[in-house]
Amino acid sequence: MSRRSFLKKTALTGLGLSAFGWLETQALSYFQSLPKVNKKRIEDRIMALAKFGQDEKGHGYRVAYTQGDIEGRKWFMDLMSKAGLNPKIDAGGNIIGRREGKNPALKPIGFGSHIDMVPDGGNYDGTLGSLAALEVIEILNENKISTEHPLEVVIFANEEGGLIGSKAMVGKLTQDGLKQISQSGLVMAEGISRIGGKPEDIGTAERKKGAFHAWLELHIEQGGILDAEGLQIGVVEGIVGILDVEVTVEGFANHAGTTPMKLRKDAMLAASKLTVAVNEIINSFPGSQVGTVGKIEAFPGAYNVVPGKVIMGLEIRDLSFEKIEMLLGEIQNKAQEIATETQTSIMFRREPSFNLPALTDASVQMKIQESAMALGLKTKHMQSGAGHDTQQISLLAPVGMIFVPSVGGISHSPNEFTKAEDMENGANVLLHTILSLDKG
Amino acid sequence: MSRRSFLKKTALTGLGLSAFGWLETQALSYFQSLPKVNKKRIEDRIMALAKFGQDEKGHGYRVAYTQGDIEGRKWFMDLMSKAGLNPKIDAGGNIIGRREGKNPALKPIGFGSHIDMVPDGGNYDGTLGSLAALEVIEILNENKISTEHPLEVVIFANEEGGLIGSKAMVGKLTQDGLKQISQSGLVMAEGISRIGGKPEDIGTAERKKGAFHAWLELHIEQGGILDAEGLQIGVVEGIVGILDVEVTVEGFANHAGTTPMKLRKDAMLAASKLTVAVNEIINSFPGSQVGTVGKIEAFPGAYNVVPGKVIMGLEIRDLSFEKIEMLLGEIQNKAQEIATETQTSIMFRREPSFNLPALTDASVQMKIQESAMALGLKTKHMQSGAGHDTQQISLLAPVGMIFVPSVGGISHSPNEFTKAEDMENGANVLLHTILSLDKG
Repeated sequence: MSRRSFLKKTALTGLGLSAFGWLETQALSYFQSLPKVNKKRIEDRIMALAKFGQDEKGHGYRVAYTQGDIEGRKWFMDLMSKAGLNPKIDAGGNIIGRREGKNPALKPIGFGSHIDMVPDGGNYDGTLGSLAALEVIEILNENKISTEHPLEVVIFANEEGGLIGSKAMVGKLTQDGLKQISQSGLVMAEGISRIGGKPEDIGTAERKKGAFHAWLELHIEQGGILDAEGLQIGVVEGIVGILDVEVTVEGFANHAGTTPMKLRKDAMLAASKLTVAVNEIINSFPGSQVGTVGKIEAFPGAYNVVPGKVIMGLEIRDLSFEKIEMLLGEIQNKAQEIATETQTSIMFRREPSFNLPALTDASVQMKIQESAMALGLKTKHMQSGAGHDTQQISLLAPVGMIFVPSVGGISHSPNEFTKAEDMENGANVLLHTILSLDKG
Repeated sequence: MSRRSFLKKTALTGLGLSAFGWLETQALSYFQSLPKVNKKRIEDRIMALAKFGQDEKGHGYRVAYTQGDIEGRKWFMDLMSKAGLNPKIDAGGNIIGRREGKNPALKPIGFGSHIDMVPDGGNYDGTLGSLAALEVIEILNENKISTEHPLEVVIFANEEGGLIGSKAMVGKLTQDGLKQISQSGLVMAEGISRIGGKPEDIGTAERKKGAFHAWLELHIEQGGILDAEGLQIGVVEGIVGILDVEVTVEGFANHAGTTPMKLRKDAMLAASKLTVAVNEIINSFPGSQVGTVGKIEAFPGAYNVVPGKVIMGLEIRDLSFEKIEMLLGEIQNKAQEIATETQTSIMFRREPSFNLPALTDASVQMKIQESAMALGLKTKHMQSGAGHDTQQISLLAPVGMIFVPSVGGISHSPNEFTKAEDMENGANVLLHTILSLDKG
């Protein structure tokens, strides 16, 4: 049994710390000597930040580049300044604060998240990881702890609009990307200017490979696994790759009254068979892969016309690029059968927005695991089905992600909720993992 | 073997007239003595009428109540006047012309169709039956033939917008119906006024039960059966009933990356399974019934969200009301299974626009059949899968419909086409059936 399998097994079976011979007494007492975060401060700040961009019904619209985002960022930067982080805004609009370490030759340990949200979104997604990063700094300040490495807190700009700030940091925000319309209604470049970035100098936001000693992000799970299984900490093994494919089924539009069943070339029937097949194929292989038909349009789209054309949106996610390709291949093979059977044609067009999977670093995972266990928390190694800025930063440094439960797995919704105790647990694991990484 | 089965069988096997003992020599020689229509005149007028409402690309937009419709009607009424029909417009906008018979005590034999079209429609749907009705009158005039019964040519208003004119004639055009927006963009009442009707006196358009001795309509098939089977005349047994049902599938919208397959309540998957089941159920019973899922909408409708709700449009058509109900029952039973299996709920709401099936009169069918056979034409008894004004008139009188082939079964399209010879055949059958009905 590998060490990791052992960790997973014991975590899942909820054995006490005494079972872990490998977590030596010395290490355990080190972790247990570390300070803890202030739960109430995190909770209060979650509530305070929620006010920015809130409408009269209490729903959150802190969409990147809007007034709520601008004001929320100002509030956040003021707190960073008070904590001595001397925050700056890079060309991509990311807020970066720095706390010097004892050894200026060492690379910084980076951590943070984002504070923008989807329209009518929740108050925990991104915000928790951002406020926990600030909390880490304040606890270190209060406990007069100096780290060997410098520390960098990064609040990424416009995560929800396509990881825009973190793309700028890894040199992937193109001139074309700057011309896209953002959710705020502003062209991306204009939005970035509005929050203090410099789209005209976007290249200066780019950091080189090796820019961080390590990178950490705490985030709510956005799925229901930890909540359903009664676990406190998710040790993220990687962020899934996402392949979006537009599927076009062409049949022949015809009168739904006068066209006998056997003479039809029904694009809707073919599309439905394919949707059922996608579900069967995804479920027929072991693993955590997911496949979804989330959008559909039928043409002409009337009661009395057999649809001549249907366009669907298919999405496949997995930690393995090869597996995504294999699943798409299986789906395409099945589509050929369905096309023949229904006398239609079925075409697949990959969307240009393909996201490669991003794996987290095994040694960072281990330190997260150790920190959590020393705190007596039950953990699970898991994938992130959602995209995060950390997937971009994995191009620059070893990365890790810490998940805490979302109640009911709800996210991107006003009903998104994470208990204060879970936020506290996550922030403590973040703090202790940073100190463990600093110790080396 | 019933007489009708015999007729069908022999027609389909293409036996010569000599085989029909029942079509006595006397009857045969009567039919063969009758005059024939002028093919070129019909063809020329099809082309001439097509110009009204045509755009610069040659596509037809003679939608009811638009300028093209108004001008086309004027052109048609001028021809009716020249043929001595003295056309009038009733309160519903229907054009009615009358040719007196020898016996004023007899009820009129009615025939006709409509000349409005769907947007970007074809030049034969409705138009052929209208021009053939006029042709019948001109041939009788030219051959100085007086009928016993008066003859009435009716060109119904706004057939394509929901049998509006014929509904007015049977007293089913309600005040609510007059307030609907028509395809022209005008409120129905306003449209009717524009073409010379009197929506304020809509009740005066109503005809009493027994208003006609018999009613006939010649129409293109709008399906591909006659064309595919190489037959010339369809003897319509009835016009199918149409049940439209809005189907709502409710699941739970969730993140398409973070929600494991087994935790999903995917409304799209349920909707697809149901669409496949509709097709299987419709095909599992003998008969000519058709069932179609022609429209669909998924909510929220994005690549990265498992749909929480899907709304679909289901349509079932058949000549039997009981069979439609039975099929819907089977579909609903299957929907319950699918809902349980996918953890969704599936609701069915009948649209208020239900059309009851309308059967044609058996003795009228027989006269159509005899006329066609005396002309040496191959026939098939068949249903009309599309709606027609004749289904309304069936409430007033014994009705019959004559179908001629549409090439490739195409209709409601600029590619709609019926060969001149087939138009000629249909018009001859119409003429001879009228004379046969007049003879009694």
